[in-house]
Amino acid sequence: MKLNVEVLMITTGGSRIAILSDETANMLGVHSSDRIRLTYGKQEMIAIANIAPYFPKNRIGLYQETVEVLRAKEDETIDVQLAPLPESLFNVRAKLHGERLRDKDIVNIVNDVVERHLSSVEIAAFLTALSIHGLSTAENEALSKAMVSTGKTISFGEGPILDKHSVGGIPGDKTSMLVVPIVAAAGFTIPKTSSRAITSPSGTADRVETLCPVNLGINEIKEVVSKTNGCLVWGGSLELAPADDLFIQVEYPLGIDPMLLPSILSKKKAIGATDVVIDIPTGMGAKIKTRTEAYTLASDFVDLGKRLGLNIQCALTFGDQPLGCSIGPALEACEALTTLMGGGPPDLRDKAVSLAGMLFEMVGVEDGRVKAEEILDSGKAEAKMREIIAAQGGDPGVKPDDLPIGSEMVEVCSEQAGKVIWLSTEDIVRIAREAGAPKEKGGGLVLHAKLGETVHKGDVLFEIYAERCSKLTSALELAHQLSPIVLTKKPAEKMILDQVPEKLAHEKTFMIDR
Amino acid sequence: MKLNVEVLMITTGGSRIAILSDETANMLGVHSSDRIRLTYGKQEMIAIANIAPYFPKNRIGLYQETVEVLRAKEDETIDVQLAPLPESLFNVRAKLHGERLRDKDIVNIVNDVVERHLSSVEIAAFLTALSIHGLSTAENEALSKAMVSTGKTISFGEGPILDKHSVGGIPGDKTSMLVVPIVAAAGFTIPKTSSRAITSPSGTADRVETLCPVNLGINEIKEVVSKTNGCLVWGGSLELAPADDLFIQVEYPLGIDPMLLPSILSKKKAIGATDVVIDIPTGMGAKIKTRTEAYTLASDFVDLGKRLGLNIQCALTFGDQPLGCSIGPALEACEALTTLMGGGPPDLRDKAVSLAGMLFEMVGVEDGRVKAEEILDSGKAEAKMREIIAAQGGDPGVKPDDLPIGSEMVEVCSEQAGKVIWLSTEDIVRIAREAGAPKEKGGGLVLHAKLGETVHKGDVLFEIYAERCSKLTSALELAHQLSPIVLTKKPAEKMILDQVPEKLAHEKTFMIDR
Repeated sequence: MKLNVEVLMITTGGSRIAILSDETANMLGVHSSDRIRLTYGKQEMIAIANIAPYFPKNRIGLYQETVEVLRAKEDETIDVQLAPLPESLFNVRAKLHGERLRDKDIVNIVNDVVERHLSSVEIAAFLTALSIHGLSTAENEALSKAMVSTGKTISFGEGPILDKHSVGGIPGDKTSMLVVPIVAAAGFTIPKTSSRAITSPSGTADRVETLCPVNLGINEIKEVVSKTNGCLVWGGSLELAPADDLFIQVEYPLGIDPMLLPSILSKKKAIGATDVVIDIPTGMGAKIKTRTEAYTLASDFVDLGKRLGLNIQCALTFGDQPLGCSIGPALEACEALTTLMGGGPPDLRDKAVSLAGMLFEMVGVEDGRVKAEEILDSGKAEAKMREIIAAQGGDPGVKPDDLPIGSEMVEVCSEQAGKVIWLSTEDIVRIAREAGAPKEKGGGLVLHAKLGETVHKGDVLFEIYAERCSKLTSALELAHQLSPIVLTKKPAEKMILDQVPEKLAHEKTFMIDR
Repeated sequence: MKLNVEVLMITTGGSRIAILSDETANMLGVHSSDRIRLTYGKQEMIAIANIAPYFPKNRIGLYQETVEVLRAKEDETIDVQLAPLPESLFNVRAKLHGERLRDKDIVNIVNDVVERHLSSVEIAAFLTALSIHGLSTAENEALSKAMVSTGKTISFGEGPILDKHSVGGIPGDKTSMLVVPIVAAAGFTIPKTSSRAITSPSGTADRVETLCPVNLGINEIKEVVSKTNGCLVWGGSLELAPADDLFIQVEYPLGIDPMLLPSILSKKKAIGATDVVIDIPTGMGAKIKTRTEAYTLASDFVDLGKRLGLNIQCALTFGDQPLGCSIGPALEACEALTTLMGGGPPDLRDKAVSLAGMLFEMVGVEDGRVKAEEILDSGKAEAKMREIIAAQGGDPGVKPDDLPIGSEMVEVCSEQAGKVIWLSTEDIVRIAREAGAPKEKGGGLVLHAKLGETVHKGDVLFEIYAERCSKLTSALELAHQLSPIVLTKKPAEKMILDQVPEKLAHEKTFMIDR
C-alpha cells in the first residue's frame, strides 16, 4: 500500500516506530505491534506499527529514528506492507516454553534487538523467561559472543590487557580508583570503563567525574591509555555491547538481571581484556548474601571466561557494610585520593592492594600483594593517578580539599552507648540519595562508626553532606526515621528481633552462611 | 520542576506517555520508563517518561492520551516530578519470583493496567511470568473479579441469562450462529458477544457481519435483546473488561494466553450470564490436543465458574478437523443460514443442537437436545435469526445466495484415490487467509472431502474462493505446496511418517490420547 510520509519531529528514544490509522492497519491486516516493511526507493526497513485512531488514513507517521534509516521526507510516498514475524520472535517464544536456545537462535535474537526488530514487549518477555528459567553456560557464551559481535571493539595492542570489575551492591566501593593506578604504575595496561549509578549513590564514573572528564570517545581513550597505561572512563556511550544497553533499559523497571554474566564479560571482551579480576562482595549488605551463592557465581564467571578466552579470577570480598567511610561521588573521590596519598581507611587500602595483587599474580608477577603495597606506599600510584587525571583533561595537582563536597553538613549522634552490630547498607544508600547523590555530586555521608566499633552516648555516628539545605533536611529526617546503625551493649541482650504475625510480602529472604 | 507543554498531535494507542529531554530527565532523576507525576492546577496524573535526546529541555511533550487526562494546553506550564514506583510493580516483581499473589495484589495490578500506570514492558513481564509459573484458582478468581469491576457491565434483567463460548482453534466453527437463535426461540435470553479473527480466517463477529451490523453500543444491544431475546454482536468495543483487552494486546505478539479462564469468564460475568456452556474442541486440529488436557481445563472452568457464581458446563467436542465445510466469513455465514433453513452439514447441525440442548437442561428443560432439534426443524430458529438480523439492522429476508462470496473460484482436485486420513487445520487456515479471509469477507474455502471419506482420482478435494484473482492465485499456489488433505489407500501401507535426524526447533509437540 502506498502511503504519504508524515515526519514526526520527535524521537522514541531508540525504537523504530511508524504510526498507522486503524483503518489503514485494518486494510493491511496489521495489528498493533506487528512489524511492517517500509520501502522508499532502494531503501528498505522494518518498523513496528503503532495504531492510532484518528490518524489520517492515507498517511504514515514516522518518528525520527525511522526517518533517519529510511531517509524519506515529508509528503513523499513510500510502500508499506505487513512484514512476516521475525525468526527471532519464535526463538523468544521457545524460551518462554523453557526450551534451550542454540547459538544461532541467540544470534538471531541479539541481532534483532540491535536492529530494533524486536519490540520492548518481546524483549521484556525474553528477559523474564531467562530470569525464571535461567541460562545454560552455552547460552551465556553465545549471548556474550553475540553481544560483542554486534558492538564496537577497542584494541589496545599487544600484551596482557588487565581489568577489574565488581558485581556491585555495597555503597562506598571506590576500589577501582586505586586498582587502576596501582596496576598502570607497574607498567601493565588497564583500560577501565565504568558505569554511572542507577539505584546506588555513586558509580565509578560518577566518582571519577569529580576529578576529570569521563565521557571520552574511543580515540581519546586509546590516547589516554597509550600515554598512561590506564584510564577511568564512562563506558555507557561507547556502544561496546549495544544489545546489553538495550536489555538493561528493559530490566531496570522489572528489577531483574538475568544476563549478569554475559553483560559484564561481553564488555570486557570488547575492550580486548585478557586477565580480569571479578570482585563479588558477599554478605548481608551486598547483592550476594551467602558464600554458597558467591561460589556458584564465581565458578560460573571462571567457566564462561574460559569459553570466551578470558583468564578470570574471582574475589569473594567482605560485604556486610559499606567500604571505607565515604558515600557519594565527591566524598568517595576525596577518600580515594587521600588513600592514594598514604591515608585513608584500612579496609579500602586492603581491598585495593589485594585485588591489584591478584591481577599481578595472574600475569606472572610473584608476591603480587607485596608489589601492590610497594607501589601504593612509594607514591607511584598517586603519581600515576595524577597522570591519568591530566590525560583525561582534569587538574593533575588536585588536592582532596578541592573536591566539590556539599557545603551543608549535619552530624548524626548516638543516643546510646554500645557496639555497632549492624549497618543497613540499604538504608545508608537511601539517606545518601536523599542528600542528593548521585545527581548532586557533593551529597552523601561519612560514617564514623563501623561494625564492631565501640560508641559512646553522644558520639558522632555519621555526617550527612548536601549541596542544598532542603536536601540536608530531608536526608536528616530520613536518617532519624531509619536509624541505619544498630548498637547493642552486649549481643543477645534482646533475643527477639521481630515478630511475624502473617506472611510477609515481597521481601527477598536471605540466608546467613558465614 | 516547571515545564512548558508541547502538545503532540498523535496518540500512542492508549499509553499515557510524556517526553522529556535527557538533560531534564537527568535533573529530575528520571530514567527511561520511570513514572512521573504531572500536576496542572488541580489536575494530577501519572505518566510514563520517554526520554528523547534533542527534545527542548524546558518542555514536556504530551501525547493525546496524556493531554486528554491532564487538560493542559500548548505552552502552558505544568509541574513535573519523579513519581514513586507503583505498589503494583512490586506485585509484578513478586510474580516474577514465583510468589502467589493475594487478592489485593491482583486488584492493584489490574487497576494500574487500566489506569495505564504499568508500562507494556511491565505487563509483558507479568504475563510471561504467569505463563511460566501458572495461576492458582484463587488468582484466577481474583483476576476475573478485578477485570469485571474495572469495566462496564450490562444488565438484561431477571431470569437466567444463557451464554455459549468456544475456546476456539478449529476453523469453520459457526456454531454460535445456530445456538443463539435456537435458545432465543425457546424464550431464553442469550446476549452473545463475540470477537473478530486475529490469527484465524474468521471470528463469529466477522461471520455475522456479512448478514448485519455487529458493532453495536450497549443501549442498542439491550434493545435488540429486549426485542428478540438474543443478539450476535462484536464485544471488542464495549469495554466489558478493558484490562483483558490490554492484556491481549501484549499477549498477541508473544503467542501466550495465560489468562484464558479469567479472560473468558470476566466477560461472561460482565454481561450478567448465569448459565454458560464452554465448548472445548479437542483433537489434532484444535488448540487442546488431548482429552487429559481438555478435562483439566474443563474442571478449571467449572471450578472458577462456581467461585464467580456462574453455572458452567463444558463440552469436549471433536476437534480433529474443521467444522462443517465452509471456511471464511461469508462462506461460513452462508453455511450457517443454510443449516438454519434445514440443510447444512451434519456435524454442524449435531454440534449446535447438542450445545443448545445442554444449555436447555442447565436451566431445567428436559430432553434439551430433542427440544433444540424441534426448534431447528420447525423453522423457529431460522425465523428467530431473521428477527435478530433485522433488529441489528440487517435484511431479514437475506438468502444464502445474497451473501458476498468471492467471485473468483478454483477447484483443487485429488491426484490419487484413497481415504482421507488427515486434514491439517493449520494449513487450511493458512490457505483461507491467503485467499483474503478474514479482511476480504468473500475469501476462504469449501471442503469437499472430510475425514474418513473415500476420494477418487480427479475428485474435488476443496474449492478456494477469493474476491481478487491475485489472492486466488497465491492461495492456490499455497494449497499445492501444503497439500492439507492426506489420503491413503490402506492405513499402515507406508510406516515411516518422517525421519528425525536432529532436534527439531520450536514445533510444539502433541500427544495422541484417544
